[in-house]
This record gives sequence, C-alpha cells and structure tokens, in this order.
Amino acid sequence: MARIVIALGGNALQKDGEASAEAQIRVAEQTARQLIALVRDGHEIVVVHGNGPQVGNIILREEAINTADMPTLPIDSCVAMSQGSIGYWLQLAIGNELRRAGVAKSVATVVTQSLVRADDEAFHRPSKPVGQFYETRAAAEQAAAGRQNFIVKEDAGRGWRRVVASPRPIDIIEKDFVASLVREGYIVVAAGGGGIPVVVEADGSLRGAEAVVDKDFAAEKLAEAINADILLILTAVDQVAINYNTPQEIPLGRLTIADTKNYIADGQFAAGSMLPKIEASLEFVKSGDGRRAIITTPTRAYDAIRGRAGTIITD
Amino acid sequence: MARIVIALGGNALQKDGEASAEAQIRVAEQTARQLIALVRDGHEIVVVHGNGPQVGNIILREEAINTADMPTLPIDSCVAMSQGSIGYWLQLAIGNELRRAGVAKSVATVVTQSLVRADDEAFHRPSKPVGQFYETRAAAEQAAAGRQNFIVKEDAGRGWRRVVASPRPIDIIEKDFVASLVREGYIVVAAGGGGIPVVVEADGSLRGAEAVVDKDFAAEKLAEAINADILLILTAVDQVAINYNTPQEIPLGRLTIADTKNYIADGQFAAGSMLPKIEASLEFVKSGDGRRAIITTPTRAYDAIRGRAGTIITD
Repeated sequence: MARIVIALGGNALQKDGEASAEAQIRVAEQTARQLIALVRDGHEIVVVHGNGPQVGNIILREEAINTADMPTLPIDSCVAMSQGSIGYWLQLAIGNELRRAGVAKSVATVVTQSLVRADDEAFHRPSKPVGQFYETRAAAEQAAAGRQNFIVKEDAGRGWRRVVASPRPIDIIEKDFVASLVREGYIVVAAGGGGIPVVVEADGSLRGAEAVVDKDFAAEKLAEAINADILLILTAVDQVAINYNTPQEIPLGRLTIADTKNYIADGQFAAGSMLPKIEASLEFVKSGDGRRAIITTPTRAYDAIRGRAGTIITD
Repeated sequence: MARIVIALGGNALQKDGEASAEAQIRVAEQTARQLIALVRDGHEIVVVHGNGPQVGNIILREEAINTADMPTLPIDSCVAMSQGSIGYWLQLAIGNELRRAGVAKSVATVVTQSLVRADDEAFHRPSKPVGQFYETRAAAEQAAAGRQNFIVKEDAGRGWRRVVASPRPIDIIEKDFVASLVREGYIVVAAGGGGIPVVVEADGSLRGAEAVVDKDFAAEKLAEAINADILLILTAVDQVAINYNTPQEIPLGRLTIADTKNYIADGQFAAGSMLPKIEASLEFVKSGDGRRAIITTPTRAYDAIRGRAGTIITD
C-alpha cells in the first residue's frame, strides 16, 4: 500500500479537443476507472490535474469582455475558476465510478494555492503564451496598453500573444489540509492547474500572481509535503524514450538518477513537454529514501504501479 | 463555544458593484475580520457564500462565445467556476487576516455539490433570470433554439432573458467531508453559490442540473447535516423588520417559530429577498433542540452572536 500523488495530463480530461462539459466528464470517467483500481488495492491517492485548454478558454472569455461592470479577472482568479470546474468534473466522475464499483470512499476537491517566489527569475522572462492571438505587434501592444504585467511576444509564426511567467512552486499552502484528508481516507483532488500562484508580501500576507505553475512541479512539491511514496505522472506516452521520434527510439522501463541526469545533459527530453516531467520526477526521487516516480499513460496507470508498464525512476 | 454556519450575502464580497478581483478581495478582508473575531472566541465556523453577480458574469461570458472549440458550459459548471474564484478570494482574505491577527488556524475551500430532486416542481416553473438580455421575444427564442432547458421569459420590462429553476437542496454531497474538517479545526468555505446542483440518475450516479440553488437553503441544509448550533445569515439589514420600508417599520430583536409563521402568513417578508432567509431560519430552528438562527449584517455578526445585535430566531 502506497501513498500516490497522480499528475493528470490534459489527455485525461479532453480527447480530440472535445471541450463540452459532457465530453470532459465522460473522459474523466474513463480515467477514474483506472484510479479506482488503485484505490481498491488499498493505495491512497491525490490527484493533481492540468488545466491548459480549460484555463485557456476561461482567459479568452475574460479578455473578450472588459468593461467597468465586468472587468477582466487576472490569471490567478482564472486558475481558481478552472480548479472549480475541472475539480467538479473529476469529483463527479470519480464519485460515480466509486459507486458503480461499490467502493465506499469519497472524493473531495480543495481549492489550492501554490507559493512562488516574487523574485523568481521566471518573472523576468515570461514564456507561457495565454489568451488570444493578435495579428500584428501593433495590435498586441494596443491590447497591452495600460494593463499591468501584460507582455506580448511573437508565437511561432501564428501571431502575437500575451506571455506569462511560469515560476517554480516552493510550497503548497494547503498541504496540511490535503495530508489530513488523505489520512482520513479521502481521494483528494488538489493543486489543480499547478495551483493558484501566490507570493508573500512584505507584511507576510499572500497576494495572487499573474502567472501559471507547471502541474508536474506542483504535484512533486505536494508529494514531498504529504510524504508520498510515489509520484505518478500520467501523460500521452506509455514510456519515456530516448531518441524519441527517430528510427533509433528506445523506450525505457527503468531510469536511475544518474542515467536521467546524463540523458538530460544529452538533450534527450523536450523542454515544455517531457523535460519538466523528468525534472519533477528527479526532484521527487532525490527528496527521500525509497521514493519513486513513474511516467505512463492513464490507461497503463494501474499496471505501472504493479511494475508492469511505464517508466520507473528510482535512485 | 458554538458551531456556526454563516451564509454570506453578496454585500460581503461586492460593494458599489465593484467586480474586479482586487476590490472583491478587499471587501472579503473586511468581512474576514468579523469572522476571525468569532474564531478567536473559540467558535467553529463554516462559510457558505452567495455568487449572484459573479456567476452572472461567468454565464454572460460563457454565452458570449459558443463555438465548436469553445462550447458554452452549462450552469452547473459555471457555479463550480464561481466556487473556485470566490472560494480563492475568501481563502486568501481570511488567511491573511488570520496571520495579521496571529490566530493559528487554517482556511480551506471545498468544491461542493448540492443534491436536488429531479422531480422538484421548481423545474416546471423556472424563475431565476440568468445571462444576457434579449430585446425581443423573437431574439430570445432564436438564442434558445436547439439548446436544452433554455426557457426564456420577459424580465420586468427590461427585455427577455433565460430563466432557470431554483430547486430546494435535499442534501449536501460533501457534508461528511465538511464535518470532519470542522472537527479538525479548519475554517471551511463550502457550498458556495448554494452548491453545484446535481440530481441522481436511475443507476444511482450523479449528474449536473442546469439550475441554481439558493445559498441560504444550502447553508441551512449543511448546518443541519454537520450538527451546527447556529445558522448565521449575513445580509444588508441589521435586523429583520415588519412593515418594512413603511413609517410603521418595526425592527425585531427576537422571533419565535410561532411569530415567524404568523408574519409569513401576513406577507411581511419579500419573496426572493427576506422570505427565503426567514424560511431557511425556521427550517433550521425546527430541525433540532437548541438550534438558533440569526439574521444581521456582516459588520454586526460578532455582536449578534453575543446577543447584542441582529434578529434571533428560536423555538
């Protein structure tokens, strides 16, 4: 029996870009069946979901209407909204699958803040594109005029777009709360979308930051904080591979810290894609004795925990 | 020391219609100071907030963009989003005020579903206006075409508008979860906006309903379920009054069940305004020995619990 923090990628909620609530609940139910197999085996689970497409739509809608009566809400509030909607869909889907499976457990979603450093260098080089596309630099700069922290950047030939910082989480504000729920037997959905980014002010109070936090790093930080045994990162590939997408591709069943560092140095993992998952895994494995990280797809999650699928990273 | 469920009206979050996140957090901080005075005295508190203006804006933005890539989300998902954003603002505000006051307590927001009956007669006479105004019946009916549960109605001479049902909550799905958090000493924000309305399907699973639940009734149901001592309803008036807004207006310090029933029969309380608060109060007081309900403003909350302000309703 292990305590497992599961980082759920976008494909655990959306298939073929189907963005209706109904479609997302349906996909969440498929994912939920895998998770429940783990719960049946006696494992404790905490789910940290991504929110890329969902918060993207929320931000687009916020930007579309910006009047005195309906001012555009900042990104931290948009992340909070996505925790509400996605948390609800997961909670509904997992709850329904628990009832179908006859498993007497409950699921709970907690609104979660991720602490980031106000002086994180990520704030000096915002990199994460969000919101609408502007055709020209002039149009983008006009949209940015008079708005704080509104930096625009050319986005891969597709136009201009706002970019926000993606600082590393250094703590999860609600970590004790999540830990106590897990101890009481709840399946917990927490740190959705990487958590709502907050910074500490001079007087010790918290304030929202217009940024987004990587959900794999947030899951890692939460896994450390609640003393988890396994960080399980669910994504689009069954196994991590080197020489990915080449005729020499080699899928890896097992990775040690040393191997992983070498492959990173070798540029084997794509930034913004597999690299953060590998880095989060490494950080977790190094954080305590016996801690393991596993990377696989939602459908192989159950087998992976039993050592029959996925890539396992150990010290 | 009492266990208190607090229903927070819209004025505990928005003043003068200021809808920016910053303004709402500022107002929430003022409200939080009152709540913390109660916590200092040893009371356990659960906060149930309204979401009228906030979910109104979310629904307007959802309706403003409805494409294959960005389909308009149904109302239950919009309520869930408002639990995320408002929960975050309250959590941030209460957390900051706790730190300032040096009170070693934590605050937690839980995404909450309210169970309603699929055959609640409210579904046959939807009455709650939501979303945008249409100038003519024809324009409203065109917007409604092809959308399920999209009923339109003339709204007080201001145009046509969608109306949704406001069924009574019969249970709070996450009640045990809220109860265990309260026992552990957390200040809990739950059932925001009255909770996300869900119904039970034939196979026992839950499904979202396009409806809104009154937050006072949800607070009442939650207060019963977690065995609270006091239901504290915070609204725009210091005390309940009869002959309200007339020269014969009489504010009431105390109401018994019998008095209250007589005044209701006499039409003393306005439907959709004071009446649901009075009905929720009655229901709570009748639900168990020694249970009290109190109605007052956020600024009088602390005094009211000590019997120095507000209207107290007892059996």
